[in-house]
Amino acid sequence: VAQPEETRTAVIDLGSNTFRLVVFTAAGRRWWKRVDEIYEPVRISAGMGPSGELQPAPMERALGAIDVFAHFCRAAGVDEVRAVATSAIREASNREAFLARARERSGLDIEVLSRRDEAFYGYVAAVNSTTLADGVVLDIGGGSMQLTQVAGRASREAESWRMGAVRMTERFLPGERATRKQLRALTDHVARKLGEAEWLRGAGGSGRLVGLGGTVRTLAVAAEKAADMPSFGVQGFPLQRSALDELIAELAALPAAERRRVPGIKPERADLILAGAIVIQGVLEVGGFDAMEVTEWGLREGIFLATQLAPADPPLVPDVRGASVRNLAAQYDTDERHAQHVAALALSMFDGLAAAGLHAGDPEERDLLWAAALLHDIGTTVDYDDHHRHSRYLILNAGLPGFTPREVALIGQMARYHRKGTPAMGDLKPLMVKGDQELLDRCSALLRVAEQLERSRDQTVHDARVELDDGRVRLALVADEEVPVARWAAERQSDVFERAFGRTLEIAEAER
Amino acid sequence: VAQPEETRTAVIDLGSNTFRLVVFTAAGRRWWKRVDEIYEPVRISAGMGPSGELQPAPMERALGAIDVFAHFCRAAGVDEVRAVATSAIREASNREAFLARARERSGLDIEVLSRRDEAFYGYVAAVNSTTLADGVVLDIGGGSMQLTQVAGRASREAESWRMGAVRMTERFLPGERATRKQLRALTDHVARKLGEAEWLRGAGGSGRLVGLGGTVRTLAVAAEKAADMPSFGVQGFPLQRSALDELIAELAALPAAERRRVPGIKPERADLILAGAIVIQGVLEVGGFDAMEVTEWGLREGIFLATQLAPADPPLVPDVRGASVRNLAAQYDTDERHAQHVAALALSMFDGLAAAGLHAGDPEERDLLWAAALLHDIGTTVDYDDHHRHSRYLILNAGLPGFTPREVALIGQMARYHRKGTPAMGDLKPLMVKGDQELLDRCSALLRVAEQLERSRDQTVHDARVELDDGRVRLALVADEEVPVARWAAERQSDVFERAFGRTLEIAEAER
Repeated sequence: VAQPEETRTAVIDLGSNTFRLVVFTAAGRRWWKRVDEIYEPVRISAGMGPSGELQPAPMERALGAIDVFAHFCRAAGVDEVRAVATSAIREASNREAFLARARERSGLDIEVLSRRDEAFYGYVAAVNSTTLADGVVLDIGGGSMQLTQVAGRASREAESWRMGAVRMTERFLPGERATRKQLRALTDHVARKLGEAEWLRGAGGSGRLVGLGGTVRTLAVAAEKAADMPSFGVQGFPLQRSALDELIAELAALPAAERRRVPGIKPERADLILAGAIVIQGVLEVGGFDAMEVTEWGLREGIFLATQLAPADPPLVPDVRGASVRNLAAQYDTDERHAQHVAALALSMFDGLAAAGLHAGDPEERDLLWAAALLHDIGTTVDYDDHHRHSRYLILNAGLPGFTPREVALIGQMARYHRKGTPAMGDLKPLMVKGDQELLDRCSALLRVAEQLERSRDQTVHDARVELDDGRVRLALVADEEVPVARWAAERQSDVFERAFGRTLEIAEAER
Repeated sequence: VAQPEETRTAVIDLGSNTFRLVVFTAAGRRWWKRVDEIYEPVRISAGMGPSGELQPAPMERALGAIDVFAHFCRAAGVDEVRAVATSAIREASNREAFLARARERSGLDIEVLSRRDEAFYGYVAAVNSTTLADGVVLDIGGGSMQLTQVAGRASREAESWRMGAVRMTERFLPGERATRKQLRALTDHVARKLGEAEWLRGAGGSGRLVGLGGTVRTLAVAAEKAADMPSFGVQGFPLQRSALDELIAELAALPAAERRRVPGIKPERADLILAGAIVIQGVLEVGGFDAMEVTEWGLREGIFLATQLAPADPPLVPDVRGASVRNLAAQYDTDERHAQHVAALALSMFDGLAAAGLHAGDPEERDLLWAAALLHDIGTTVDYDDHHRHSRYLILNAGLPGFTPREVALIGQMARYHRKGTPAMGDLKPLMVKGDQELLDRCSALLRVAEQLERSRDQTVHDARVELDDGRVRLALVADEEVPVARWAAERQSDVFERAFGRTLEIAEAER
């Protein structure tokens, strides 16, 4: 397959606390990924005070960092730069003077995002990295929190409150110890403010909540650790209301300096995390949500995707799960036709066995099988030996937006067992729910048989028809010629098949 | 960089026990790797007895497997096939009839390797996957053992003995229990036979011993486990004489059926391993070797390389370590100019600091630093986040022929710490020797500074000159223009540098 031209897009995000530059590389519409990132903790809003003026020293730091970023973009051969500023600069009384100096010194044009723009890019990130169709997107930063109502994947209402983690900490929880009175005052403030949004009340009855931003990610990591879950990131992690409540109780009982001891809480966020968590708790409460799904994407991914999908408006990837899987598969130089054919064979057998009444034919399970089939060979990039293990490593570590950690784990394990071994969840077991072992057995068996039917990687076996014969399953191979390799290879998988479906497997060639 | 055309070569190895097909892909001379493998435990020599005739049933199994292999080659689009047969077929009285039938049925021309050919390809594998220049290559299979004398990387004497693991087991250790008398008889037989080779006696005084084959690999895995070493393969593993003696004692004390309980001993080799180990022990004894270095390459890699390097004779890769590192780096789509420039900067600082008396400038350490620099970014293939960890994973799992496990571990850890963290060996600590922590500190620091000097990946910093100034180290950056990104980035690495060299680091620009 000819690879389309690769283009590099830099997104520069001038936030209240940190300035950050991220480079994305895209090969046309085939794949994209983040390829570089630099940042500087500029703290531009330091000492701003009630005057709302950016102070000289922070401005100097900011201009220095912007200059470095601009040099970086030129040196690194970036094709397109989008530099944006959010609340700290947006709300500074001397922002025009600052932007003019930045332009003069670095040549960069900095776009100041309105609150509405900022919420919009958060929404773009959320709906393109989760399967959210109806519900609410929550995006909390240091200065403000945005909520966007989503219906049929489109954004409806969007509001922004000055209830960021830094701002709420400074106003309500400034001391080492958070008193009950302070906590109560913050909770009341959040509830009162959120009461302004009519559309939020009871939104959890018919929709889901997706959260993004550093505070959200940190809370998800802490909840993951508290539940002793294996961790390969928090993309798609469902943060339960009860888990959040427990974290808040734990954090509130500690002095600010000791909150970093809570596993998963990064030191640099330890003093801000409690206020942020309480704001999120307020959203769950008012909206009536049982949980918040976490995405690792944010403003920068939203901006990149909007640029990438332009002029589509709203910029929506049609099928998030499919796009994730295809994006990951395309990044590896594996045999695409082979992977697609293994997927087709596996799904055909899945459907045939469901039609024969040997399993329920759950569509979500079918999705996971498809994903594992498309990705089963990416590990050959590392080494042919143990490539099934390497595929698992690559799947778990790259992540698959649109899937939960449990689903990613299942896909990884299916790939892990596509050649040999007895399918098991191993150290990912804590993520399993009831029925997952059987699901893994079925999908691993089908993937393994499909892989063996396509062992010579030439698509000679067009299809494998499921026939029930006296309690045995006969797979009738459809091909234009004899297929000795496929027969030889697939016959060796009868044990894993029998374990999954309780039937003996027989391989035959369909009549030609 | 334009990628050269990829070609696929299949090597089919018709051994006494197993028939195996391996596919290698090569992109010109840029890189090659194993990409596929199928095998069938044919046991063609089953029931041969004293008549030396291949029996009908094993022949049928063999022809069936050869047919599948031939189909596989055609279907999988292999450009070149080399099919070879070793001792079982070579020594069969009806071999011509068998080969004719194989040709007729599969269209494959099978080349019967002479003992000399077989030893030669083992030698080719050994000298191209280790740094062996002078010494002996040991290749032990089921039927025979070959020893090849090596001088200046060229093969000199080569001899073959019918002392393979299967043959010696059947003749000397046929029962469940190995008696002292039987063990003694085998040891004496080996010593007597090896006595025929004048050149072997005392060869350990001036040379090394490199071993290959399944018996050798199995013993290495067992020794690795016995010493509680972390394992990522046994390429380059030094199997000490004392460790081998202990394994033999342990195995000899167990009945054959229980030898598989020794950690690392695969069940299918459990009944043969003791005799094989005793033969190897005999070689160490007669040759006066303290240890045997293990290579995972064998006959198939030897044949592939000889094909690949033809018409060079002998087929020798000029610089095994360099070729290994370059081969691995070229398999990943990372920025080659960047990696090479990071290597150049790191080595220049390494040399400058050695000249200034801040470290010893050990050439082996320099090799490892170079390798880590060339490979530091390969993990970006997995994900930008944590790519330093992914680079380590890829390095450890792919392996680097020419380096010992300890060296591969050090290269992996240098890559692991090329961005952040305090350099440490972690779970690879058991591989360390005295001084390795300091070595890792130095190389990680230099790699990290070099990476930051080349942070914008555009090679603007041509060089970094080491200057000593009042106890501090000043790096004077040589460039044609201002290099704010490099200065900004490198200044952030002073802590890791100070830890390694005990000096404060200062970044300056050289006069232009």
